[in-house]
Amino acid sequence: MSGATVGFVGLGAMGRGMAGSLLRAGHAVRVWNRSPEPVAALVSQGAEAAGSLAEVFAADTVVSMLANDQAVEGLLLDPELLAGAKATLHVNMATVSLALAERAEALHAEHGIGYVAAPVLGRPPVAEAGKLNILAAGAPELLDRAEPLFAAMGDRTWRFGDAPRQANTAKISTNFLLACAIESMAEACSLAEAHGVRPTDLVEMLTGTLFPGPIYSGYGSMVAERRYEPAGFRLPLGLKDVGLALEAGAARHVPLPFGGILRDAFLDALAHGDGEKDWAAVAEVARRRAGLPD
Amino acid sequence: MSGATVGFVGLGAMGRGMAGSLLRAGHAVRVWNRSPEPVAALVSQGAEAAGSLAEVFAADTVVSMLANDQAVEGLLLDPELLAGAKATLHVNMATVSLALAERAEALHAEHGIGYVAAPVLGRPPVAEAGKLNILAAGAPELLDRAEPLFAAMGDRTWRFGDAPRQANTAKISTNFLLACAIESMAEACSLAEAHGVRPTDLVEMLTGTLFPGPIYSGYGSMVAERRYEPAGFRLPLGLKDVGLALEAGAARHVPLPFGGILRDAFLDALAHGDGEKDWAAVAEVARRRAGLPD
Amino acid sequence: MSGATVGFVGLGAMGRGMAGSLLRAGHAVRVWNRSPEPVAALVSQGAEAAGSLAEVFAADTVVSMLANDQAVEGLLLDPELLAGAKATLHVNMATVSLALAERAEALHAEHGIGYVAAPVLGRPPVAEAGKLNILAAGAPELLDRAEPLFAAMGDRTWRFGDAPRQANTAKISTNFLLACAIESMAEACSLAEAHGVRPTDLVEMLTGTLFPGPIYSGYGSMVAERRYEPAGFRLPLGLKDVGLALEAGAARHVPLPFGGILRDAFLDALAHGDGEKDWAAVAEVARRRAGLPD
Amino acid sequence: MSGATVGFVGLGAMGRGMAGSLLRAGHAVRVWNRSPEPVAALVSQGAEAAGSLAEVFAADTVVSMLANDQAVEGLLLDPELLAGAKATLHVNMATVSLALAERAEALHAEHGIGYVAAPVLGRPPVAEAGKLNILAAGAPELLDRAEPLFAAMGDRTWRFGDAPRQANTAKISTNFLLACAIESMAEACSLAEAHGVRPTDLVEMLTGTLFPGPIYSGYGSMVAERRYEPAGFRLPLGLKDVGLALEAGAARHVPLPFGGILRDAFLDALAHGDGEKDWAAVAEVARRRAGLPD
Repeated sequence: MSGATVGFVGLGAMGRGMAGSLLRAGHAVRVWNRSPEPVAALVSQGAEAAGSLAEVFAADTVVSMLANDQAVEGLLLDPELLAGAKATLHVNMATVSLALAERAEALHAEHGIGYVAAPVLGRPPVAEAGKLNILAAGAPELLDRAEPLFAAMGDRTWRFGDAPRQANTAKISTNFLLACAIESMAEACSLAEAHGVRPTDLVEMLTGTLFPGPIYSGYGSMVAERRYEPAGFRLPLGLKDVGLALEAGAARHVPLPFGGILRDAFLDALAHGDGEKDWAAVAEVARRRAGLPD
Repeated sequence: MSGATVGFVGLGAMGRGMAGSLLRAGHAVRVWNRSPEPVAALVSQGAEAAGSLAEVFAADTVVSMLANDQAVEGLLLDPELLAGAKATLHVNMATVSLALAERAEALHAEHGIGYVAAPVLGRPPVAEAGKLNILAAGAPELLDRAEPLFAAMGDRTWRFGDAPRQANTAKISTNFLLACAIESMAEACSLAEAHGVRPTDLVEMLTGTLFPGPIYSGYGSMVAERRYEPAGFRLPLGLKDVGLALEAGAARHVPLPFGGILRDAFLDALAHGDGEKDWAAVAEVARRRAGLPD
Repeated sequence: MSGATVGFVGLGAMGRGMAGSLLRAGHAVRVWNRSPEPVAALVSQGAEAAGSLAEVFAADTVVSMLANDQAVEGLLLDPELLAGAKATLHVNMATVSLALAERAEALHAEHGIGYVAAPVLGRPPVAEAGKLNILAAGAPELLDRAEPLFAAMGDRTWRFGDAPRQANTAKISTNFLLACAIESMAEACSLAEAHGVRPTDLVEMLTGTLFPGPIYSGYGSMVAERRYEPAGFRLPLGLKDVGLALEAGAARHVPLPFGGILRDAFLDALAHGDGEKDWAAVAEVARRRAGLPD
Repeated sequence: MSGATVGFVGLGAMGRGMAGSLLRAGHAVRVWNRSPEPVAALVSQGAEAAGSLAEVFAADTVVSMLANDQAVEGLLLDPELLAGAKATLHVNMATVSLALAERAEALHAEHGIGYVAAPVLGRPPVAEAGKLNILAAGAPELLDRAEPLFAAMGDRTWRFGDAPRQANTAKISTNFLLACAIESMAEACSLAEAHGVRPTDLVEMLTGTLFPGPIYSGYGSMVAERRYEPAGFRLPLGLKDVGLALEAGAARHVPLPFGGILRDAFLDALAHGDGEKDWAAVAEVARRRAGLPD
């Protein structure tokens, strides 16, 4: 096996685009996924199929993009796997908790494997296009080493420090801001509607003036039009992300009052059966509180 | 007095730029202000000084840009003044409460004067440059009549409906969203800082990716750098605007949970002596809650 | 008119019981009410009917028990009335805002009339029985002078200081605590019910152990049994009282996070048509948030 | 070993009083504790010292009173221990999460051991006196069997249903109400103090009228006098209990807005170094928010 090979774990909606970007940039990629279907698709693009996680960790560098803490914990934080690894760098691009980030870093250090956190901003089509924003942290020499991979998968890499968890903090903070923006617009649109202003008019003005950009524009129109399906990002995942922020706050005694409101709003949405909708559906909670017509 | 003359009341930091824009666009403008200094400056630009509010209301159209409800109530909602007015249109561009907007509309109607609400987005230099965004509502024919004035003062006019209060609703909702954005960034930056991420790094990434635009960029850097002076918009004015949103919500039974948090945060900031700072200083409350170094 | 006569203004559900208590204790009472019916009832108990407020204020001491700020402001804070008064003491027993309490004190001082605030705890039957708790504040010699009246109307008088507004503060704080207790039980009962515990079992245990007393017991059973009618204290009055606390907090920059939650919960209840129910019906908001069966 | 012997695990401040009560009531008690000191004290009162947890579970009935989920999980939810147990009833009197309660019940059922949850209300001196209030749930025949033990340890047993977790729900709800009462008084006392009313006067009146009982009286005076040491119940334990309520809420999608406020207040208190104080010290957060003198 050549040292230039990149091991890649996790071919979900995001991971398959990212692995594809690596292939298109000329990297040799050895892929593994819990379910076999996405593996075949990547192999048809030139990837090598790994027979086991151990084979992935026989590559010099491993990139992983798993769904959450549980998946990372269950699949990768395996002392046996790490003890037998030839890899000297693991780039974890998942959105995970700070507690997991710390455990992961310590465990990799024990086994002499470099560990870098590099969660991303961007939806699957952006991953597909290799245009992600990558939030990275870790030892500078490791980040330098990962740079060609980042260049293949992303538009730009933002560095947040020497400790991997700093990148996870940045990602968690960003998702917290997304949720705050959605709830803000939800409350503003309910206020507007209750006073006879069309939410679509409000959002059009807002995004045409002070609040340009994909979040206010994208979620703003979903909220204003009450269009929550198909779900780009499901509501329970939103609650999970708010939970990551609250947990990160608790670990350092940082109160997050907006976070508490968000948590309750997402629970309220789930209590009313909106778990399969986009997290923008939290706006229905604001409407229900105000008794606006269903 | 020619029918083409525009009466203008309120030459504060915003009003003087707006009146100047009208002059530059070739309108004849008759100005009045409580204190005389700004009048002289406008006269030197070609305006006529009114000797009284009655002289202002002798013009066909009156534009007013006063500081708040109290000023509008005290100066303009004067039955005697309105009864004697020749003006047939009053364009009120101040940010006022919905309750005042309703009283103003009713009182003008009693005296047969058209009333339009047209609060604006933009700071004094934008007013000076005639590049404001104007949020307008009122009878369509009145809005059409005001359009040449709007064109002189603003970049774009956004119409929100036939009832003047709809424009005030849009403005109040917008300011509410500004306050929400500031508090969101304050909480996110405290979270980041507590975990060793530099808030300036976080804000640079955010504004370079998902949150472009003047609000996240301008207030984001103020929050991240803890730079709250000189005040572009003083904290007590921020509390006043949050209060307008809460009051508007209460009038239609619209709970605004983020609004409640904002109110407490602004009170906390005032309790700690930050009343002369920019409203971005509410971020210090988030830092204090988390025990971050002063 | 004898110096021993007490003028009494405001014969609502509370006032008529209080005036009756004064009569039963042997005081000469001259009564006035906006609507005439309650006057006749008191006259049949031995009271004298006043032909005007001026006649009430011709008595040595005036006791007033009006519904709210508006009534006090409109009827009693009348410079002409006070200028012509022979009364040297006005005991205001209404629950009013601190702002009104301050205006009232200042205006009475201008006219050389002693002013005491003495809001009460207790429902109409308690007023009827002369068993109220009286929260009093004002100059000690005035409080001493009012003591025989307090003794007739109440079980106990609690003194809070020399400035009348201190008694209003105590009353506003007490009502705030009532609202907090109701919301606390509402949330706890929703939590219990969602996990299969009968709210009535929970409340029975709570009031039998750590939370005895009329509030937890009375409101607890209303919440647990979802019994909100007939209304002992209507929901909009509860919102008004929460508003008095928030306003009092704002005046001294005291954030009240529970107050913000209460405000939203009461608005939510009003938005859902519960304005005629007892304020314990705010518990339905907690149930609705959790999606509990209607 | 006689069938009448009761195994007892956990001789902390509460457990030693409870085991002592069992002894005084004539029960044969075999005790185990992680650290040996309390064992000796109980042995001197007539208890038998168990050499291992297995010896405890050789008794017919086991009572456990451990500190938290971690202790219960680590010591008692041990499949080997339960598989070898002769005990047919385990009465778990600790305050634990609902998630743990469910796992515990299922695991005991697998091994054919009856499981009852019976958390208690009362501080150590009350445990010592055998006057606890016991919140119990489980199969009726198991509760009946435990009744003599309950009678020895408590004043009264409150039954909440057939599923053990119902008792845990009742306990978690009760502790949530305690925290709400403390925060309510903290806010009310800050409001009062800011307006010149002595918090001690306010609390004296409150507890003498509408809010009798140990909670408002005990915590009220601590808050009013700012007396937080010695700690009867440490602040981090309060945060843990609030967390149990929030977690229980989340499991059934029950928003708890007061809970979110409490969480932030406790974090704020910890951020300011009050972790060794009584949880009533959360009142300092309310004072700090309002800028009241330190």
